[in-house]
Amino acid sequence: MGAGDSQLIIDQFGAFVGKHSERLRVSLKGQVVEERPFHGLEHVLVASGGVALSSDLIQACAERGIPISFISRVGHPYARVMSSGLVGTVRTRREQLLAYLDERGVALARAFSSGKVKNQAVLLKYMAKYRKGNAPEVFEKARAAAESLEGFAERIQVVKGDSVDEVRQDILTLEGHAAKVYWEAAGELLIPETDWQGRHTRGARDLVNSALNYGYGMLYCQAERAIMLAGLDPYAGFLHADRAGKPSLVLDLVEEFRQMTVDRAVFGLVNKGVGLEVEGGLLTEESRRTIAEKVNERLETEERYEGKKHKLRTVIQSQARRVAVYVRGEGRPYRAWVGRW
Amino acid sequence: MGAGDSQLIIDQFGAFVGKHSERLRVSLKGQVVEERPFHGLEHVLVASGGVALSSDLIQACAERGIPISFISRVGHPYARVMSSGLVGTVRTRREQLLAYLDERGVALARAFSSGKVKNQAVLLKYMAKYRKGNAPEVFEKARAAAESLEGFAERIQVVKGDSVDEVRQDILTLEGHAAKVYWEAAGELLIPETDWQGRHTRGARDLVNSALNYGYGMLYCQAERAIMLAGLDPYAGFLHADRAGKPSLVLDLVEEFRQMTVDRAVFGLVNKGVGLEVEGGLLTEESRRTIAEKVNERLETEERYEGKKHKLRTVIQSQARRVAVYVRGEGRPYRAWVGRW
Repeated sequence: MGAGDSQLIIDQFGAFVGKHSERLRVSLKGQVVEERPFHGLEHVLVASGGVALSSDLIQACAERGIPISFISRVGHPYARVMSSGLVGTVRTRREQLLAYLDERGVALARAFSSGKVKNQAVLLKYMAKYRKGNAPEVFEKARAAAESLEGFAERIQVVKGDSVDEVRQDILTLEGHAAKVYWEAAGELLIPETDWQGRHTRGARDLVNSALNYGYGMLYCQAERAIMLAGLDPYAGFLHADRAGKPSLVLDLVEEFRQMTVDRAVFGLVNKGVGLEVEGGLLTEESRRTIAEKVNERLETEERYEGKKHKLRTVIQSQARRVAVYVRGEGRPYRAWVGRW
Repeated sequence: MGAGDSQLIIDQFGAFVGKHSERLRVSLKGQVVEERPFHGLEHVLVASGGVALSSDLIQACAERGIPISFISRVGHPYARVMSSGLVGTVRTRREQLLAYLDERGVALARAFSSGKVKNQAVLLKYMAKYRKGNAPEVFEKARAAAESLEGFAERIQVVKGDSVDEVRQDILTLEGHAAKVYWEAAGELLIPETDWQGRHTRGARDLVNSALNYGYGMLYCQAERAIMLAGLDPYAGFLHADRAGKPSLVLDLVEEFRQMTVDRAVFGLVNKGVGLEVEGGLLTEESRRTIAEKVNERLETEERYEGKKHKLRTVIQSQARRVAVYVRGEGRPYRAWVGRW
């Protein structure tokens, strides 16, 4: 079962998750293997088949506003349990949809995209600093790539237009160039044994891409939860265009968090040679557990945000609220979170 | 366990709901008590505590677009499992939110409200016709009440204004007068043994109101499902104003269905003297099961809709789609469904 203070990951086949008094209780073959008070619990992630949940647990979580997310073996979030009374006021969603048509949408799309590219630069610099002594040429290449990425981020920030539909193509083109630089440079920073043929999204069968996709799936669950709790519509994004069944605002919000949560966790595991495995194109159960623990550890790590230390998980929640505040016209312009190296 | 062709009601304490091949399987103490192919299944309603669900079942339902709703002992829908990929295109919700600001919202509010009042008249006439011979004075009173209701419905249909916020109070005032007429007249049509002190919503502890509230809870689940599948936001209603956590569009859509699904089912049970019971202000498990079966039977009943016979359940789904089509400006004005007596 998963560690983490506020997120509980259920990843064992055959686990039964029930409610016992004021606690969530996980049993395996009739033996209690974990208990967790509802107080302080923020999210339950079911990451295995063959798990059973009691309706009393579902009711207890719903009443306390604790979402339960379900993720498949390849990291695809396939379902969630939401409280029927949780989704809150519609005013935020009203403004969210209107923001799509005006300069607020442009500002958000620029912020999400440039935020991602800035964090790509940060992660390259973070990984490179350990190579300065033993591999100065690797260090220099990574630094050069990071500088190039910072250039792309600046160019994204000044793309102009009246609505997000007008500027999307320009932003995505710059983002595409940046992605090429980033993934090539990241590959150079992995240990030479790594089978890295470049980034692939859905349907990837190699180890690193499978691990990234699984981690991103966890991140999507986290961002979706944050977006729902902020009263936003997960399907009405800005940078990612409307498409049926695509949670485009989730995909928007994760952009600034991909590198410092998932990429950093996965690259760290790969470079430590911890023996992640794919079998028949799928991560093994043990590998999925290792990745989930590592990503969760990252989400529990404190990072600087608005002048204070906060867990990354909390930063994601705060940033979703920032989007809501911004579209409602109540706060300062939205700024992406950028990590430190 | 529940009957019904397309909705499955899980109402037994201790039931385990799993997936077996292409079927949903319900077991009780290790014995299979029901199997249902996923094909043709449209909705799973968990109406008891102490039910366990497997993650494989949840995945199978999510992949097939079958929502799972949870309802408490007093009929309060407390949670639902939704597919992460189901909620569809955002264009409908965009138009839904814009419709709130213009004459589309006015037309919808008038239709929902007058639809309810017309169906109140229909149900009184339906119940009265069996009394014409043996109690002509009861019959006459009910007919007079029905005529009065038809008058209110006509007045609601001609309320004028530029936005729903402008007309809401006028509509609700007329609706309030109608409700008084309806519930008084309905009380006269119940058998004399009935303890009927008038209509109470939340917190009711008497039999008839508790039974109505439980039935309405089932109807809310049905309408919420229909609204989500139509791509509408359940929290952005017209007649019912925005309020945090209130699924106002669900409350709007159920108006035209309350009488012919729930009231008719509950009044029928009461008048047959089937022995519904409250204990300590709560319906007994047996009573809840009886009500759920009867309401479900009504939902499975074929009624006239757009010139053809359709199950009431299908009519609810079609009406939700009609709302979506209307706000998108693609179809004729929305008209409430009105039953026959």
